[in-house]
Amino acid sequence: MAPEPRRSWLLPAAALVPILAFAAAALAQPEAGKPASPIYGVTVPDGYRAWPLIAPALEGAPLNELRAVLGNDVAVKAYARGTLPFPDGTILVKLAWQHVPSPDFEPATVPGRATTVQVMVKDAQRYPATGGWGFGRFIDGQPVDEAQHETCFACHEARVKDRDFVFTRYAR
Amino acid sequence: MAPEPRRSWLLPAAALVPILAFAAAALAQPEAGKPASPIYGVTVPDGYRAWPLIAPALEGAPLNELRAVLGNDVAVKAYARGTLPFPDGTILVKLAWQHVPSPDFEPATVPGRATTVQVMVKDAQRYPATGGWGFGRFIDGQPVDEAQHETCFACHEARVKDRDFVFTRYAR
Repeated sequence: MAPEPRRSWLLPAAALVPILAFAAAALAQPEAGKPASPIYGVTVPDGYRAWPLIAPALEGAPLNELRAVLGNDVAVKAYARGTLPFPDGTILVKLAWQHVPSPDFEPATVPGRATTVQVMVKDAQRYPATGGWGFGRFIDGQPVDEAQHETCFACHEARVKDRDFVFTRYAR
Repeated sequence: MAPEPRRSWLLPAAALVPILAFAAAALAQPEAGKPASPIYGVTVPDGYRAWPLIAPALEGAPLNELRAVLGNDVAVKAYARGTLPFPDGTILVKLAWQHVPSPDFEPATVPGRATTVQVMVKDAQRYPATGGWGFGRFIDGQPVDEAQHETCFACHEARVKDRDFVFTRYAR
């Protein structure tokens, strides 16, 4: 086979430009096509249900929910090391269920119907106005309305600004 | 190199016997050397804290605990497929914490001090008298006494025999 002329490398390199641009867009919106939250464009991450537990919680009246916050690998490592602020790529997912009495053991309360799935994504460049966090609140896989999403950051900012706006502590 | 005489294979094969015996013992007690529960010899499995969540729960008075059951890969697959009885190798770990009011958000109750870690291991051959399950209850990494371990199976048998003696349902 004859050696290729040098110029032949220029065309593939040029061809890479739209590919790289697409890849960059895909990184910014890693799960395009899925239902995304208003304001933030946050989606429910694939595979989150198998992520490690950060902590369970109980939410009293009027919601009366059992909850569990799960975190991706970036989140878990940040908790383990006490890294604040959380690094870009951190994702926290809070699952919530109505709580119901256990049918099997009287003193216990267990998850009933799933209510909401709530997501926090850290991306300091993308979310500079909200502490670097994007928020998503989903019911049955669909994001709730913009008005509800407008309340997320204000509450986190008012209460847990000193922990990079994250309520949940790792349960040891 | 001269070809080895056939007989030379006999010695290595004989030498394998104690090695295989040791390996079999190691499989039966995969984490030998760790504190093991009385009766069952169950240990706290390495890495369990990163296992997927099966479900959170609340335990009312007098314990007043927040709890979370985590499961290994075998457990998660069995739950996903509705496999009953759970296959050998299933491990469930229940973490429990005293519950305390959130200092950050009044309606919430969050994990306080860790209380117990409780383990169920499925091995039908090893635990034929207790539905195929071995039990371990640990406080600060140490198993509690034999009397407490004698109560495990009776309660599971009385209440959830039809679910292969497992209380916790997967929280969807």
